[in-house]
Amino acid sequence: MRGVALTVLSLATAATTVLAGSKISASRPADPEGQYPRFGACPDPHACIFPPDVSTFLPGAFFDLRVELHAYDKDTSKPTPAPYKEFKTVIRKDRGDWVDINKFFKIKSTPKIENWTFDWVDSIETQFSEYLNNTNKPIEVAVASRAWRKLKITSPGDYEVKVEYGPKKSYSAKYTIVEPKKPKKKAKNVILFISDGTNVGMVTAARALARKHTSGKYESLLTFEDFDHLGHVITNSIDSLVTDSANSASAYATGHKASVNCLGVYADSSADPFDDPKVELLTELIRRRQPKKAIGIVSTAYGQDATPAAWTSHTRRRSTAAEITDQILHGIGNWTNAVVPDVWLAGGAEYFTGSKALNKKNYYDIFKKSGYNLVMDKKSLLANKKKNDKLLGVFRTGNMDVWFERNLFSNNTVGNKAHPSMNGADALGSNQPGLSDMTLSALEVLKKRGGKDGFFMMSEAASVDKQLHKFDFSRAYAELIELDVTIKNTIKWLKKNGEYEDTLILLTADHSHSYDVYGSVDSNYIMTHDDANDMRNAIGTSSQAGWPGYFDNNGDGFPDNWFPKVVLAAGTNNSPDRHEAFQTSAKGPRAPTVETEEGLYISNPKDIAGKLGRGIHVESNLPIHEDQGQHSMSDVFMYANGPSADLFKKTYENWEVFFKIAEALDIQRPGKHE
Amino acid sequence: MRGVALTVLSLATAATTVLAGSKISASRPADPEGQYPRFGACPDPHACIFPPDVSTFLPGAFFDLRVELHAYDKDTSKPTPAPYKEFKTVIRKDRGDWVDINKFFKIKSTPKIENWTFDWVDSIETQFSEYLNNTNKPIEVAVASRAWRKLKITSPGDYEVKVEYGPKKSYSAKYTIVEPKKPKKKAKNVILFISDGTNVGMVTAARALARKHTSGKYESLLTFEDFDHLGHVITNSIDSLVTDSANSASAYATGHKASVNCLGVYADSSADPFDDPKVELLTELIRRRQPKKAIGIVSTAYGQDATPAAWTSHTRRRSTAAEITDQILHGIGNWTNAVVPDVWLAGGAEYFTGSKALNKKNYYDIFKKSGYNLVMDKKSLLANKKKNDKLLGVFRTGNMDVWFERNLFSNNTVGNKAHPSMNGADALGSNQPGLSDMTLSALEVLKKRGGKDGFFMMSEAASVDKQLHKFDFSRAYAELIELDVTIKNTIKWLKKNGEYEDTLILLTADHSHSYDVYGSVDSNYIMTHDDANDMRNAIGTSSQAGWPGYFDNNGDGFPDNWFPKVVLAAGTNNSPDRHEAFQTSAKGPRAPTVETEEGLYISNPKDIAGKLGRGIHVESNLPIHEDQGQHSMSDVFMYANGPSADLFKKTYENWEVFFKIAEALDIQRPGKHE
Repeated sequence: MRGVALTVLSLATAATTVLAGSKISASRPADPEGQYPRFGACPDPHACIFPPDVSTFLPGAFFDLRVELHAYDKDTSKPTPAPYKEFKTVIRKDRGDWVDINKFFKIKSTPKIENWTFDWVDSIETQFSEYLNNTNKPIEVAVASRAWRKLKITSPGDYEVKVEYGPKKSYSAKYTIVEPKKPKKKAKNVILFISDGTNVGMVTAARALARKHTSGKYESLLTFEDFDHLGHVITNSIDSLVTDSANSASAYATGHKASVNCLGVYADSSADPFDDPKVELLTELIRRRQPKKAIGIVSTAYGQDATPAAWTSHTRRRSTAAEITDQILHGIGNWTNAVVPDVWLAGGAEYFTGSKALNKKNYYDIFKKSGYNLVMDKKSLLANKKKNDKLLGVFRTGNMDVWFERNLFSNNTVGNKAHPSMNGADALGSNQPGLSDMTLSALEVLKKRGGKDGFFMMSEAASVDKQLHKFDFSRAYAELIELDVTIKNTIKWLKKNGEYEDTLILLTADHSHSYDVYGSVDSNYIMTHDDANDMRNAIGTSSQAGWPGYFDNNGDGFPDNWFPKVVLAAGTNNSPDRHEAFQTSAKGPRAPTVETEEGLYISNPKDIAGKLGRGIHVESNLPIHEDQGQHSMSDVFMYANGPSADLFKKTYENWEVFFKIAEALDIQRPGKHE
Repeated sequence: MRGVALTVLSLATAATTVLAGSKISASRPADPEGQYPRFGACPDPHACIFPPDVSTFLPGAFFDLRVELHAYDKDTSKPTPAPYKEFKTVIRKDRGDWVDINKFFKIKSTPKIENWTFDWVDSIETQFSEYLNNTNKPIEVAVASRAWRKLKITSPGDYEVKVEYGPKKSYSAKYTIVEPKKPKKKAKNVILFISDGTNVGMVTAARALARKHTSGKYESLLTFEDFDHLGHVITNSIDSLVTDSANSASAYATGHKASVNCLGVYADSSADPFDDPKVELLTELIRRRQPKKAIGIVSTAYGQDATPAAWTSHTRRRSTAAEITDQILHGIGNWTNAVVPDVWLAGGAEYFTGSKALNKKNYYDIFKKSGYNLVMDKKSLLANKKKNDKLLGVFRTGNMDVWFERNLFSNNTVGNKAHPSMNGADALGSNQPGLSDMTLSALEVLKKRGGKDGFFMMSEAASVDKQLHKFDFSRAYAELIELDVTIKNTIKWLKKNGEYEDTLILLTADHSHSYDVYGSVDSNYIMTHDDANDMRNAIGTSSQAGWPGYFDNNGDGFPDNWFPKVVLAAGTNNSPDRHEAFQTSAKGPRAPTVETEEGLYISNPKDIAGKLGRGIHVESNLPIHEDQGQHSMSDVFMYANGPSADLFKKTYENWEVFFKIAEALDIQRPGKHE
């Protein structure tokens, strides 16, 4: 894919004039410096085009095209200028003649101009004006926009879309429609495991907990480390160094990078989260090009959370959970059909029924009417006999409980009133299925329903990220180790069912946390000394680190003892104010910070580390409104096994993963009816 | 290699009795929990064998065998027991009959028993007894030991060495002599680049500084990211989670994990750093099995530093720089010949002549007498015409200056009195060659001297690690980017000289620092606000991170502007007390801490971040005697290109790298005369 992208760049034009024949790449508007751009992925001073410059598409994949013109005066004491009224949008192929966009796409009437305004927060002083007690105001931007919906380009090549908006004023964006390739070996099935928020440091730590070593040599590695190929994935957003789970999962699902909070759309500047220009999902494309293939979505998060939602949704805001629930079944207007996955297993019950459900409808009933078999706990999931039916499993309100609470400390879930029936009963941890239960149960249905056409499944270990945000490292390790055991069980299932040779298994993350281990800690010492220096001396670094006391002697893949004397000295590089004692909480996930009356965040005295000043103080190195650890920029791993696994070696960007999976599945080319 | 190691493990015995036929792996003495073991890699209560359990060897590779028996009383008020006097060492192959070790190796007389004592610091209280003002004493251990020197086993198979030291008391260690493989495609040349202390997060950051992106997509990746294969290397020590550059480089150079500070030896418990049991270096093996091959060592550190020294030295203490200098030429007694590299380029002049040189000899003269051409600055290096001669380049006392001081701020080196002639003159940064200069100059000589037999070169970017230890992130980025440019120039040289297709190029690190980026920082804002909360608000995370202002428009591979307004918000997870403002120091490398009268370390008011309280305070989360950032555990990358590059994909341990290079070079099998 990189070769293709580079071809586009060599044809690039500058922002406002075509510099034909000159060396152009230095003149094109690169991503601009700064924390407060007017609008992401809009380097031109007034024009935006979405999809943006250097977008890449499969032939025949659907997309919306939106052009925005931005009128504004940086002097906020002056009135906002009137929005642009005149602008023209044209397109050309392979540097040929420019053609009116309507003519090119055979659209009878130009879409009407839409107008709105948005606020451009252009500086730190403006963002923190309340805290700084100043009178700074955001710059109001008046927008004029046109959107062309459900376009597609079938013929491979280099395209350029240009908006002309004044004398000598224009901006253009280059697109590539890729030349499809036949896969060397087609994958009948693809299983994409996503370990949310997991970096290489976490894999190293999980191995240290779950595998034995002699003379410093491991007896075996984690299951996924034996996969055929290893690659690295570059995760940054379209408009920021650091990504979130929404736009990163969306890049995997669509082949397009986007902005924080986006699912299946490029962010436009309007307030409406459902009018943003859409791009086609891998799962939508599967439904069009391999309609008999089965599709499964599994997550330990609430199922409307970013990573699972990326495979069924189009929304500018990942928080629109009620609409995301509806889109699973009904999709979005003026677009290809809804994905309607064959299996959907997760938390998030509150968006299926009750006050938070869309229009307070009962989506359990709606799903059942469309042929779904509904299960609500581990027992009924494992007992499922209706393997020919679509399967909806909703096991809790909100996120499912983590491995610790599902397996070790189910008592911590007493009183959660989180039963998926929304009847106020508890959803005990021990009654919730684990990731392995969900993944294997999904496979049973997917095999039946996909038959010889196979299946695509996304299965997410969601709470690695969620626990890292809260510095509950032990719970994060357990989620990752549970994923490793899930992969081991999945391989066993695939082999038993004769599907192993035909299945591409992928394991990646969507972004990093800056997690690493820098030594070990003597728990007895740190928890019995109050002096800060004394507590620090409980940490052993370099040769003094020795080995922690985690061992898996019973062979279940998990450490037998989560509370050894010597534990990992681990951490991340950013934090709100809190304390750290490197201990495992038996009383539920950590809550390291509390909010003050002024809306700031300080160390929580009820947290395991903060109690009675226990632990080493960590001063905040985050903006004042941040209450948790932040994502980091580091590339993430990609482990790949099976047919077409070699596509996933080396280093590439998150959006390229879509094209690699599409090649493996052989859905790159338009069908005869397209 | 893993398969071989697992075979050994399946034959494993328990600590003191042979559990034939039972499932043994759970019973063997795994690496024990704890920060204060009696002695590393000695799980038995009294016996040690080095090489230790599960060691792996090439057929015919030399090694020393040392057996130690430890007598001690944990009650330090009691006298130390007498050392063991009677113990017997036996060996067997493939679970056959036990044979006396002398008989097996055809040694006429059993080596004499050596006796010494060492102090076992067995707890935090004892280690910090001065600080804690207690009377704890280390446990004195009385040692009896025998060492067999310069052994080798030629026949592949599984071996077991056992020491019997009392009624029913014995301990055994398993060895594997691997079955050599013919490489699929032999590498005539191997270039091993080592980026010291570099993790995946640093690669991600270097790319963000040195490569342009549009709409969040990179126009190109770093040079080495286009290599054929990517792997991960597990770096932990033989006896600790975390490694240092000595034992990690030694693992690459010998195929044996060792302890912190070890080069080419397993650590024994004696005080003498030169009597520890040796293992053969890759470079020594090359000299024996491909004697016409040329060998080059290049580093930006002082050349006696761990990473370069690992290819010519055997010492238990990396700090024995004078002896390391001597060993380059003379090796060590009762062992295979010295490596005598064809090219050696680095800093470290003070160990060649003057008071720190071994016996105050003039090693410049000694090297010249053995045929070396000596150069001492960039100009004479680049003008070198004696390409048929061995080349010694020594460019500074101590570590060479970093890229910043060699290229941007040579003025900072005025007054360093570091001239390699040791005459008190300055070694200006601008007069020192860069890593690319050194690497290409080395290649010219290696090609001439190696001819059709090719060459092996290790080239190290040493100061990525050194600058990360001091939190000078900008200087660390520049060292890594200089390495990328070096690799680009190396590939160009190889292609021009017709050597590219025959050269295996590897890039790895030796260990991680816990470095990552969590957003961006507005430098103007943070440097003009004094309030801690205000300074924190200069940091943009997630969507607010945007893009920093580093761009390479002139195409030299480095950012054009090292002082943009928006910079990376980056850091590691462990630190002594200091301040951080994310700024680049124009006045020389950072010194973030100062020592107090009590021997503790606090933030340095003269550091760029600490001055006048500028920057965000970072509280120490390290033991009280630590003045700098510590290494971390995370696996490191391995990029591999060229013949046999596929051996380096997936995940493996640092010691396995030796065997992979040996396979690529086809030096696994004993020669006819061996």
